[in-house]
Amino acid sequence: MAFTTKATITTFGGKLLKLSHASTTTTTPMALNLYLPPTALRPNAAPVPLLIYLSGLTCSPENCSEKGFFAHRASQLGLALLYPDTSPRGLNLPGEKDAWDFGEAASFYIDATQEPFRAGYKMETYLTQELPEVLFGDAEFGKYLDKSKVSITGHSMGGHGALTLYLKHRELYKSVSAFAPIANPTKCPWGEKAFGGYLGGDREAWKGHDATELLGRCEAGDDVKMLVDVGTGDNFYKQGQLLPENLEKAAKEAGVKGFQLRYQEGYDHSYYFMSSFADEHVEHAAKHLGLL
Amino acid sequence: MAFTTKATITTFGGKLLKLSHASTTTTTPMALNLYLPPTALRPNAAPVPLLIYLSGLTCSPENCSEKGFFAHRASQLGLALLYPDTSPRGLNLPGEKDAWDFGEAASFYIDATQEPFRAGYKMETYLTQELPEVLFGDAEFGKYLDKSKVSITGHSMGGHGALTLYLKHRELYKSVSAFAPIANPTKCPWGEKAFGGYLGGDREAWKGHDATELLGRCEAGDDVKMLVDVGTGDNFYKQGQLLPENLEKAAKEAGVKGFQLRYQEGYDHSYYFMSSFADEHVEHAAKHLGLL
Repeated sequence: MAFTTKATITTFGGKLLKLSHASTTTTTPMALNLYLPPTALRPNAAPVPLLIYLSGLTCSPENCSEKGFFAHRASQLGLALLYPDTSPRGLNLPGEKDAWDFGEAASFYIDATQEPFRAGYKMETYLTQELPEVLFGDAEFGKYLDKSKVSITGHSMGGHGALTLYLKHRELYKSVSAFAPIANPTKCPWGEKAFGGYLGGDREAWKGHDATELLGRCEAGDDVKMLVDVGTGDNFYKQGQLLPENLEKAAKEAGVKGFQLRYQEGYDHSYYFMSSFADEHVEHAAKHLGLL
Repeated sequence: MAFTTKATITTFGGKLLKLSHASTTTTTPMALNLYLPPTALRPNAAPVPLLIYLSGLTCSPENCSEKGFFAHRASQLGLALLYPDTSPRGLNLPGEKDAWDFGEAASFYIDATQEPFRAGYKMETYLTQELPEVLFGDAEFGKYLDKSKVSITGHSMGGHGALTLYLKHRELYKSVSAFAPIANPTKCPWGEKAFGGYLGGDREAWKGHDATELLGRCEAGDDVKMLVDVGTGDNFYKQGQLLPENLEKAAKEAGVKGFQLRYQEGYDHSYYFMSSFADEHVEHAAKHLGLL
């Protein structure tokens, strides 16, 4: 088996599996949590669709598994959930742990080109190539999952990750959603710091990893199947780290359809916000995965 | 105002208020969280019923607010939630912090009679007298709450607390439920340690704070409006700390009605278990509070 199972927890009628595997892409062990809904666990069950959730800065697969409540609606609809980690851990690179918004638990879900991070900070390749290959091909867990039906979502840095991986790899995902995403990272302090450190000083190269830039390149009439929620009480939104208004402008200017941005009155940046709309984001994915 | 508001968080359409007040009963500041559902916050809204949740060993009001998922269904039904703390904090009594299952965050929701804990460990009086008086009479928050419609629930030590406070003070609560309660504390290691320390060596005196003993004293035909869930994968259940089978036996022997004990296959003792059945426990309370 490619995966080591660290824990199996019964929740919402299904099983939450705390897994780890040795990644050849990051050259480290990678933790992930996988939630299998009750329908997947029945004898001779058909494989179920999968929603991948990418976490925000400082998080591990644990935070959203405990506080996001995606399993509530996913269990009812028959949707599996995958919570990958936010970066490689254990590379012991210089500067890797100096800040909470760069390095460990802050990969920004891109492939770094700069030293020393290019050694293992290859989260785009990990998430779009290695992890699907290993997971869907796994002798123990692959049978539960329908690899042709995958959607992606995420929060904050993970919202950036979900939007950009979706827009860069449309063939991999049926839909996308995001909670309080860093929607225009080339124009906010978090993104400038991360892209400068991982990708170097060429700002043109950054644009290929910016959701607003990528959405602006879509063709008119393209159905982007994108749901974004942002709380109006979110301090990071107020500080200009998220810039959802730029994403919306890009959607309008490109003339795409299926784009929905909702400002949620009074909500902050926390899991108290996310969990409030988790049911709806699961339903958004479920609709595009044929479950609703 | 009697309460200091440390945070106001929008969640599930309502507000989670992180409060603190100076308790005359415990002689300490006491933290609590209060969730007000959207219906309570409308202009000229009628007061809403309240479900009190008592936490388990080591917890504060924060844990279940973040991980319990009660607000999900409470927000839909128009039910307020109150999360008190698990003990006084800051008394600096000898031995108060020596163990995780006794002293701070481990009050067992009784009034201690033994030194040094009798100084402030008076959680039964605090929860049944002072806190309702202060909260329902508060100029800012009292208007949101219908003091005539209160139910109680809890987890583990808090399940013991909910069951015993309910059975000792039937006039205060419309119904009770519990997740993995310490259901017969006079006969398990946790309870023997706590009752010995707080109440002294007279085991007869302990019985007045034991849910199994108290339920056994109910009259035949008494509708006890009691729902209890226990996971069959719960290690504390397997170790004999919970003893729900004794509670069930007492219910049968007394001939009460309205008693429901459910063994939930494979679930453990964690919030992954609790959150899975939070909707149903909220509905149990809502039914007896006239909301369903």
